[in-house]
Amino acid sequence: MSSATPATPAAAPAPTTVTVIGLGNLGQALARAFLDQGHKVTVWNRSQRKADELVALGAALAPTPTAAVEAGELVVVCVLDYTTVRDLLTPVGDALAGRVVVNLTSGTPDPARELGTWVTGRGAAYVDGAVYAIPQTIGTPEAFVLYSGDADAFAAYRALLEPLGSPVFVGADAGLAPVHDVALLSGMYGMFAGFFQTVAVGRSAGIEAAPVTELLVRWLKEALGALPAFAAEIDARDYRTQTSNIDINAVGLANILTATRDQGVGVDLLQPLHELFQRQLAEGHGSESMARAIESLR
Amino acid sequence: MSSATPATPAAAPAPTTVTVIGLGNLGQALARAFLDQGHKVTVWNRSQRKADELVALGAALAPTPTAAVEAGELVVVCVLDYTTVRDLLTPVGDALAGRVVVNLTSGTPDPARELGTWVTGRGAAYVDGAVYAIPQTIGTPEAFVLYSGDADAFAAYRALLEPLGSPVFVGADAGLAPVHDVALLSGMYGMFAGFFQTVAVGRSAGIEAAPVTELLVRWLKEALGALPAFAAEIDARDYRTQTSNIDINAVGLANILTATRDQGVGVDLLQPLHELFQRQLAEGHGSESMARAIESLR
Ligand SMILES: NC(=O)c1ccc[n+]([C@@H]2O[C@H](COP(=O)([O-])OP(=O)(O)OC[C@H]3O[C@@H](n4cnc5c(N)ncnc54)[C@H](OP(=O)(O)O)[C@@H]3O)[C@@H](O)[C@H]2O)c1
Ligand SMILES: NC(=O)c1ccc[n+]([C@@H]2O[C@H](COP(=O)([O-])OP(=O)(O)OC[C@H]3O[C@@H](n4cnc5c(N)ncnc54)[C@H](OP(=O)(O)O)[C@@H]3O)[C@@H](O)[C@H]2O)c1
Repeated sequence: MSSATPATPAAAPAPTTVTVIGLGNLGQALARAFLDQGHKVTVWNRSQRKADELVALGAALAPTPTAAVEAGELVVVCVLDYTTVRDLLTPVGDALAGRVVVNLTSGTPDPARELGTWVTGRGAAYVDGAVYAIPQTIGTPEAFVLYSGDADAFAAYRALLEPLGSPVFVGADAGLAPVHDVALLSGMYGMFAGFFQTVAVGRSAGIEAAPVTELLVRWLKEALGALPAFAAEIDARDYRTQTSNIDINAVGLANILTATRDQGVGVDLLQPLHELFQRQLAEGHGSESMARAIESLR
Repeated sequence: MSSATPATPAAAPAPTTVTVIGLGNLGQALARAFLDQGHKVTVWNRSQRKADELVALGAALAPTPTAAVEAGELVVVCVLDYTTVRDLLTPVGDALAGRVVVNLTSGTPDPARELGTWVTGRGAAYVDGAVYAIPQTIGTPEAFVLYSGDADAFAAYRALLEPLGSPVFVGADAGLAPVHDVALLSGMYGMFAGFFQTVAVGRSAGIEAAPVTELLVRWLKEALGALPAFAAEIDARDYRTQTSNIDINAVGLANILTATRDQGVGVDLLQPLHELFQRQLAEGHGSESMARAIESLR
């Protein structure tokens, strides 16, 4: 046995100095996750009282963002928006040198790239991130975090970031995590729009939101299973199909809109999808896959 | 032991005579599920060759819809649309008497009610249904079928219908399964619209549809968890919230729309939701739950 080289289980990362700037709902959960791993955590927040619980758990409270940055090799920032990140880091300036900045504030691609350039210019590595979790689910198996930017810095701290949620690196362009964020949140808002239609139709027939929502959740979990096949068709630009074509879906959706109006409910939220289908029909693509509707998006 | 009255496990229903009218993709899967249970199955389809496989599995092929109806105490109908159902059953007429008709054809509420009245007038019981499965998933644990109409007839055949997918009875008004269908399919189309936005944003940044869809599916499974709380707020008409209010979501969605346009992608599919949020803001409800947007739907 002794001469064998068994697969060693992934070792927990050695304790590291981690700084968390921004202790809103999400930032507090992030700091707690790092404390749980036994790291030396330093925190800073504009409103100091939000650090109280963390200090009780062993975190050090820094008096300024600069002092906070100086205390940590990894600097996680999670505040309201990118303007706030920039305002907080500007006075820190060259004290950033040698640090790895992981910015988990939500934002859009261009500001992420600009911030990355600025941070890099101060001698630090920049990693942008987008968190798919709420404070209560940080660290659960479902939570995941997308990262983009400095690949080496990410690789060095990947294990340390693991307890926040599964880390997924999406590319060296710092703007890519925010691009994904815009994409995935768009999908979420589409799903929410559908939810409002569902509940409004149910309500018009005296059905409460709770039971119809329970059925909707059950059905959407199933219907999500259709998306990978649509994605494959879109990637291949090959929309031949035996199953769910534009003809069938255009008729199906038109019937739904009519029935919805008959129930006295507006159809504004679904009308644009109906129009995509109609444009596909007008171009003669009725027998091709529903996924082809994306080609009419404008 | 012998004098105890142990809970008996739910017995498999005794073999029954079942008729399936309509052997399209779904109808064939339904007939197969009944055959698998050992029932005596009679089938009819306009194009006879679609019965071949089922006959090989033991089904009887009836020469006419009337002969098919006469052979089964339970008559399941699954064809293109309600007009076709009516056209097929009209010549059957009073031969329907004493039967239970379960119509699993997709449709909308008013035609379902009219068909129910007509079937009942022929001395049969009418149950309308909406299938949440595709042919390949009929009988799997995820499949479910909503039923509405004659509650006694449903109760009598509930166990027999179980192998198609979990049966859920939604009310005595025959139109209620179709109302739910309109509601749930609206939700599905909203989700699909969101998917198109997701993929279009990704594509604009050179990200393939497959990987971003994988992340979307992962995220939406999580995000679905938010819906029951929104439903509870809607049912209570109590939109006080500490978490996801209209202010936050209106800013978030506006940023997404801007970033999407910056990527050169249209925002038509999400614009109507943005307008709901704006109407809520204009009415002064910014600090209330995002779920309140439904009150602006028109
Ligand atoms: N909560 C979530 O579920 C979730 C999930 C994914 C992503 N996010 C993103 O994570 C970020 C933080 O979210 P959150 O939920 O933690 O928000 P939050 O609870 O509202 O906290 C906002 C944080 O930003 C700070 N802040 C705001 N303006 C500031 C300023 N001018 N100067 C200094 N600090 C300022 C706040 O400091 P004070 O305490 O002094 O006000 C607080 O620390 C946001 O970008 C959000 O979109 C949140
Ligand atoms: N497939 C699914 O995943 C699914 C899921 C849920 C609900 N549904 C609903 O179930 C129903 C059937 O769907 P499907 O997928 O089985 O459709 P399908 O494969 O297209 O089959 C349509 C059926 O309707 C028959 N039909 C059409 N016009 C007719 C006419 N004028 N006279 C007699 N029969 C006629 C067809 O007969 P021929 O074979 O002679 O053409 C065939 O049996 C639809 O309402 C659909 O919306 C389907």
